[in-house]
Amino acid sequence: MKTRQQLIAFIENQRLAYIGSVDEAGFPNIKAMYAPRMIKGDSLYFTTNLSALRTRQFAQEPRASVYFCERGRFRYAGLMLLGEMQVCTDDETKQAVWRDGDERYYKGGPTDPDYCVLCFTAQKARYYSNFKTIEFDLTALQDAPS
Amino acid sequence: MKTRQQLIAFIENQRLAYIGSVDEAGFPNIKAMYAPRMIKGDSLYFTTNLSALRTRQFAQEPRASVYFCERGRFRYAGLMLLGEMQVCTDDETKQAVWRDGDERYYKGGPTDPDYCVLCFTAQKARYYSNFKTIEFDLTALQDAPS
Repeated sequence: MKTRQQLIAFIENQRLAYIGSVDEAGFPNIKAMYAPRMIKGDSLYFTTNLSALRTRQFAQEPRASVYFCERGRFRYAGLMLLGEMQVCTDDETKQAVWRDGDERYYKGGPTDPDYCVLCFTAQKARYYSNFKTIEFDLTALQDAPS
Repeated sequence: MKTRQQLIAFIENQRLAYIGSVDEAGFPNIKAMYAPRMIKGDSLYFTTNLSALRTRQFAQEPRASVYFCERGRFRYAGLMLLGEMQVCTDDETKQAVWRDGDERYYKGGPTDPDYCVLCFTAQKARYYSNFKTIEFDLTALQDAPS
């Protein structure tokens, strides 16, 4: 995991993301979500319900983590990103992330008031593979040679 | 998910657990670990390194979550437990949780000073399956008929 390209390739290979939040009582919460719909710069975009518990938590407390893990036959790799989660309800973002078939979940289409986008912007990363851990911030990664 | 037996059966069926902690900067952290070695009452026991980042976090801030998820062909189910994580370094607990083969990770055997046990005691649970979420506390579950 040395370049931005490798980081993005790792994320794009995942089907699930584990999203971390902190609840009102100070407990860490975790929820599995589908892997991000869109990656743009250091931001990952997820779709969810505006009424969901996690959405309400992030509106109050944006500190978040997104974790991915890959368990191969011979190795295990985990990537934890730390950053902030923004709840986006603007039509432009909602439209950009919308995909055909989402009507199954949001009957009103891309402007359904209960459909929203969670935009996670990563600041730091921690990657674990083969008993080794490396930590880096995303700006360092950006400048790495490909 | 109506009885303690069902809850334990769900947990015992998992290979991985996702452990949530809160770091010094107030960010939720997530790490995949092997499923608990032992379940006793409302407590789940995990093995780890005393020197690990997460162990140090829990010693400072015990608020924790343990998340399990199961992705079947037709359904997805997730179980989040909220509670506190205790770092156990006493020989009795370390011996009780030790298994043959752990020497691969802890060369000094059950008394290896870098081998320790994380004991998570659940207070509340949140179970999601087929678009429905139920929340319960563990004492309520204890009294449910089997």
